[in-house]
Amino acid sequence: MDKYDIAVIGLSVMGRSLALNMADHGYRVAVYNRSKEVTEAMVKEYPHEGIQPYYSLEELTGALRRPRKIIMMIKAGAPVDAVIGNLAPLLEEGDILMDGGNSFFEDTRRRSKLLEQQGIRYYGVGISGGEEGARFGPSIMPGGDADAYGEIGPILRDISAKAEGEPCCTYIGPDGAGHYVKMVHNGIEYADMQLIAEAYLLLKYIGGFDNQRLSEIFGEWQSGELKSYLIGITADILKEPDDCTTGELVDYILDSAAQKGTGRWTSIESLKQGIDVSMITAACNARVMSNRLQEREKAFRLLKGPDVTAAGEPLSFIRMVREGLYAAKILAYAQGFSLLKDASKQYEWNLELGKIASIFRAGCIIQAVFLNDITAAFQENPNLENLLFHEFFRQGIEKNQGSLREIVTQGIKSGLPLPAMTNALAYLDAFRGAHVGANLIQAQRDCFGAHTYLRTDQEGSFHHDWGKKKED
Amino acid sequence: MDKYDIAVIGLSVMGRSLALNMADHGYRVAVYNRSKEVTEAMVKEYPHEGIQPYYSLEELTGALRRPRKIIMMIKAGAPVDAVIGNLAPLLEEGDILMDGGNSFFEDTRRRSKLLEQQGIRYYGVGISGGEEGARFGPSIMPGGDADAYGEIGPILRDISAKAEGEPCCTYIGPDGAGHYVKMVHNGIEYADMQLIAEAYLLLKYIGGFDNQRLSEIFGEWQSGELKSYLIGITADILKEPDDCTTGELVDYILDSAAQKGTGRWTSIESLKQGIDVSMITAACNARVMSNRLQEREKAFRLLKGPDVTAAGEPLSFIRMVREGLYAAKILAYAQGFSLLKDASKQYEWNLELGKIASIFRAGCIIQAVFLNDITAAFQENPNLENLLFHEFFRQGIEKNQGSLREIVTQGIKSGLPLPAMTNALAYLDAFRGAHVGANLIQAQRDCFGAHTYLRTDQEGSFHHDWGKKKED
Repeated sequence: MDKYDIAVIGLSVMGRSLALNMADHGYRVAVYNRSKEVTEAMVKEYPHEGIQPYYSLEELTGALRRPRKIIMMIKAGAPVDAVIGNLAPLLEEGDILMDGGNSFFEDTRRRSKLLEQQGIRYYGVGISGGEEGARFGPSIMPGGDADAYGEIGPILRDISAKAEGEPCCTYIGPDGAGHYVKMVHNGIEYADMQLIAEAYLLLKYIGGFDNQRLSEIFGEWQSGELKSYLIGITADILKEPDDCTTGELVDYILDSAAQKGTGRWTSIESLKQGIDVSMITAACNARVMSNRLQEREKAFRLLKGPDVTAAGEPLSFIRMVREGLYAAKILAYAQGFSLLKDASKQYEWNLELGKIASIFRAGCIIQAVFLNDITAAFQENPNLENLLFHEFFRQGIEKNQGSLREIVTQGIKSGLPLPAMTNALAYLDAFRGAHVGANLIQAQRDCFGAHTYLRTDQEGSFHHDWGKKKED
Repeated sequence: MDKYDIAVIGLSVMGRSLALNMADHGYRVAVYNRSKEVTEAMVKEYPHEGIQPYYSLEELTGALRRPRKIIMMIKAGAPVDAVIGNLAPLLEEGDILMDGGNSFFEDTRRRSKLLEQQGIRYYGVGISGGEEGARFGPSIMPGGDADAYGEIGPILRDISAKAEGEPCCTYIGPDGAGHYVKMVHNGIEYADMQLIAEAYLLLKYIGGFDNQRLSEIFGEWQSGELKSYLIGITADILKEPDDCTTGELVDYILDSAAQKGTGRWTSIESLKQGIDVSMITAACNARVMSNRLQEREKAFRLLKGPDVTAAGEPLSFIRMVREGLYAAKILAYAQGFSLLKDASKQYEWNLELGKIASIFRAGCIIQAVFLNDITAAFQENPNLENLLFHEFFRQGIEKNQGSLREIVTQGIKSGLPLPAMTNALAYLDAFRGAHVGANLIQAQRDCFGAHTYLRTDQEGSFHHDWGKKKED
């Protein structure tokens, strides 16, 4: 009866934190890492009576209660296939193998299929919240065989964050659904961060506020509709003193940001699916552009832009940036949830968007009061085609789009790059506008490629003889 | 001595036109189509003494002079693999097999490798110009084994368009290079068309011009720096009478445009490579949005936007749209050529960007006087990092960016969707701007994910202890 409830494979920061989280909740956890030293260091530095180290996969799998529950917390890609290859022969029908990393959802689909042949129930588990989340309560997105959820659900719910007492963990859907939703979560996170960066640029360069004041502004926003984890840390970051100099650290950090790939995956999938998530793509591209430091320096010298025009009355400028940021945030989430809705249909995942929004309310990076409103919208109408059609968000756009137009205009006149905010407006206006100019594009395509066209007043495809003009 | 010079497989409009083009240039062409009826119809409707039909691949390959030269003009994807499968056993070492369709460049790379084992020299040949181009002179982008180019180059150059007497065909590079360049050509074409559609929206709804005047405006632009095939057909399209009603056809065409995929491929590859081609992506997304007709109709009813503010003095508004369009066009090409430059490095293709620009000067959809300037820029400096660094384009941006800012601002205030133009500005300002706000994003990433940060004043990676704020 000394069998263990669950095994964690991979003990770098996320795996270790998750194992400790499980042990804190009374589970008996067997842990393993490919490098013995990592395992030894963990049990030495983080001793816990609920945690038992193992140094071979044979011993590890031998120590688990049936059906076995194992979660891999390792680097996405080839390492996951390698561990599966070593582990599969040691598992039995009915065992549940989970991948808690940021794997690409198509890999998870492939692995699910492969292991299904052996009767192993494979789970792609999206986990968001970084180290702190993993240790004390992340948002968890498990996707895999629905029946197996009865076995793993209790553990995952126990270790997850709680929002108003509810666990931030729900069964997402079959095969790659959990990892897909995590991917889109990260895509939205990219857009959220880029929007905040643009609000910061506007307030700093057009508003002319110093870091202390900037910190206060973001701090004030924490008492309103923008209240979120990211706005909160932004307020804190902006007033953080530098370790090495006087002044605030943010001014000494290089204006260049890296990315790990999930945002980019979201963009790529959106293009394949034919769903416009231009704000997520803009956020990925903004990071890419920020990395071209040498070229940017040269461009700065060679390509002059307009001078910054200072804002008018400070309080009304701050209000406009807040309102514009909020409108843009609604549009970013409308894009992200449109993508999820389309994927649900395309992959037959039957995603419950309201439940998904609800597990983003705590534990994860995009946690925000805003998620309550999205949850409510989808609970009210599970078939909601687009967030913007819900009365709450419709009003949010109606009230705040004027400010978004105003700050974007000021940014453009002052030469500030606002890719996410401008794409927010382009999306809104393409969506609600009476005219997008695609009639001209259709005419061009029929003219040079005989692609035919559709009419506004008649059914059917038409081809017009545009004459020999194109040969000129 | 009755051997044929070249074979064309696939006789739908592009294949047929190309075969006739070759025969016109004195080549003896063997033709084949999977459906016998198509071949029979072609030789009946388009009889030509230089063209001989064949009804089996055995006879076709038997009729060709060695090394055989065969070009497939068939639908990209599985059909190409199927034809290769049937054809390869009938070919011999040294034979040259070309794919003149819009194949994905990675497929071309794969097929090149496969056939190389058999000694068959495989070519991915990008062909642009639609039916008219194929028939009377397209722009041709052949990629494959460099040695084999001596065999096929003369034919391809003969049938290509001529720009100032020079053939619009040049050896591009090994394996998938030809199809890659064709893909990016199409991506640029998407951006070009979207920019023209946005100029049309501005002129029609803010300028308030009728179709006749719009046609005149685009017609006038044909005498300046915007002179191009696409502006030319736009001028013609706008005054084209409708077949069914009174008025101009363009007003009866549905405001919704389809796409075949090469633009989208360009976007996806750019994301994978980490190069910002936001204007091409915006053009793809604009078409995608234009297709959501039911949702757009609902959004139009539910989501009110601002009223259109009419333009001031007409002539100066027209001038601003022209100048803004020109600045945006420079930025679109800067993005596209950056992507080519990066691909050249990544795939070791050694692309000559000046030569590539030069073969776009005639035959293809994006042909424009503008391509002369790009050709000259890369001839002057083959290592040019970005088009914007060349004095000609630098000045083009300097002179015209003010107009671009002005028309975009007017469009945003009037609620018109201008995704390509706004992304042009965001790209320009991210590239040349002193600040993009990525320092804040780096700080956030270090705060929630311990991703570390770089400093402006010291080498090395740093991690700051942001305190326990994130647990709040």
